[in-house]
Amino acid sequence: MDTTTIFQHGTLGLLVPGLFDGTITAGELLTHGDTGIGTLDGLNGEVIILGGHAYQAREDGQIREIQPEETLPFASVHFEKPDISAQLAAITQTDFEQQVVHDYRLTNVFAAIRVDGTFAKVKTRVAPRQEPPYKTLVAATATQPEFTGEHVDGTIIGYYAPHLFQGATVGGFHLHFLSKDHQLGGHLLGFEVEQATLKVQHFADFHVHLPIDNEAYLQEQFDNEAIDHAINKAER
Amino acid sequence: MDTTTIFQHGTLGLLVPGLFDGTITAGELLTHGDTGIGTLDGLNGEVIILGGHAYQAREDGQIREIQPEETLPFASVHFEKPDISAQLAAITQTDFEQQVVHDYRLTNVFAAIRVDGTFAKVKTRVAPRQEPPYKTLVAATATQPEFTGEHVDGTIIGYYAPHLFQGATVGGFHLHFLSKDHQLGGHLLGFEVEQATLKVQHFADFHVHLPIDNEAYLQEQFDNEAIDHAINKAER
Repeated sequence: MDTTTIFQHGTLGLLVPGLFDGTITAGELLTHGDTGIGTLDGLNGEVIILGGHAYQAREDGQIREIQPEETLPFASVHFEKPDISAQLAAITQTDFEQQVVHDYRLTNVFAAIRVDGTFAKVKTRVAPRQEPPYKTLVAATATQPEFTGEHVDGTIIGYYAPHLFQGATVGGFHLHFLSKDHQLGGHLLGFEVEQATLKVQHFADFHVHLPIDNEAYLQEQFDNEAIDHAINKAER
Repeated sequence: MDTTTIFQHGTLGLLVPGLFDGTITAGELLTHGDTGIGTLDGLNGEVIILGGHAYQAREDGQIREIQPEETLPFASVHFEKPDISAQLAAITQTDFEQQVVHDYRLTNVFAAIRVDGTFAKVKTRVAPRQEPPYKTLVAATATQPEFTGEHVDGTIIGYYAPHLFQGATVGGFHLHFLSKDHQLGGHLLGFEVEQATLKVQHFADFHVHLPIDNEAYLQEQFDNEAIDHAINKAER
């Protein structure tokens, strides 16, 4: 089991013009990692993968387990084996991100970030399911439901990626949340830790698997600058 | 033996500010592929890997085989198993590149490009060896020896990468040349095919291995825009 590699299916860039069709099954994805994040076919919500189980946070606020035959256009996974563990208390997302990059020297390194504990505040959003013909990512996420919680027990899971890889993935932090009781989840827009345990796993290897049998992917004329702007708008 | 993955050590981006120290041995690199391109410790020339042997084209025009303990800051390799073979006659580099992208639908796909045959014209350059403290890539390659040949038998080897991956690698074509008699080699600046065989190998997987134990790499503050400009200036 390879614990030094992040496996990513697709690129964040392919979501930007609206290539939302799923091109890998959840079953196959889970052979490459037991932990991670992503989105489902049709940009249908936010995917959170913990302990070998993949969950979907839906736009109606419900959370359900994903079946092996369901497909995803984009996801990142890894096999969990953190090399850092630390206690956190009373910290906001902005301070947390600055501190983690500094303390664990992440600037140019891929890392998985996991935070388990109690959160004073959590704010998430969930991408709404799209139907073909698909809109762009920015248009599809222009209106999207947000969810909030206070004094929530749960888990933050996601990645830090070097900014050089913006486009292939999200440069910087890309974090999702799942509450312990599965009542709150999604793409993390903000949080404040009450008390939690941080785990960081550094990776020397980043492995991108591209959907090169997908006709829409082959034909798309991507624009790096448009992708950069759209990621900053839709994913932060 | 994995023939669907390009293995890359380092990023093109790390060469831009001058991180020229070798961080992988040639011996280790060759366990990830038998064919590829790169540069040696100190930006010392151009590396061409064919049939499991790694060669250095030096700034004095000499070509020698690289020893297993020598190190490289950047290289891409794969195990050769082309899925396309075609005959070429009388074509210039510009037309060749347009035709290959079009015919084999490379726009968003990683591919290895190999051309064996006789070339009416070949023009290469060789990066000159640098000593610490290193200059930037653009400064280091501002003056560099160029070499030309006519009616040369030899091999072009290199890669096409989707432009989304500019920075991690060179977006578009990145080709090196080695003559059959090992008298001419380097980074390819131009060529005209007389008669040759083209082989293309498509890859679904791109695997980047980062030097995360290298202190200079960890500390560098990379600038995506500067990297983009420098690659276009120094590598095309």
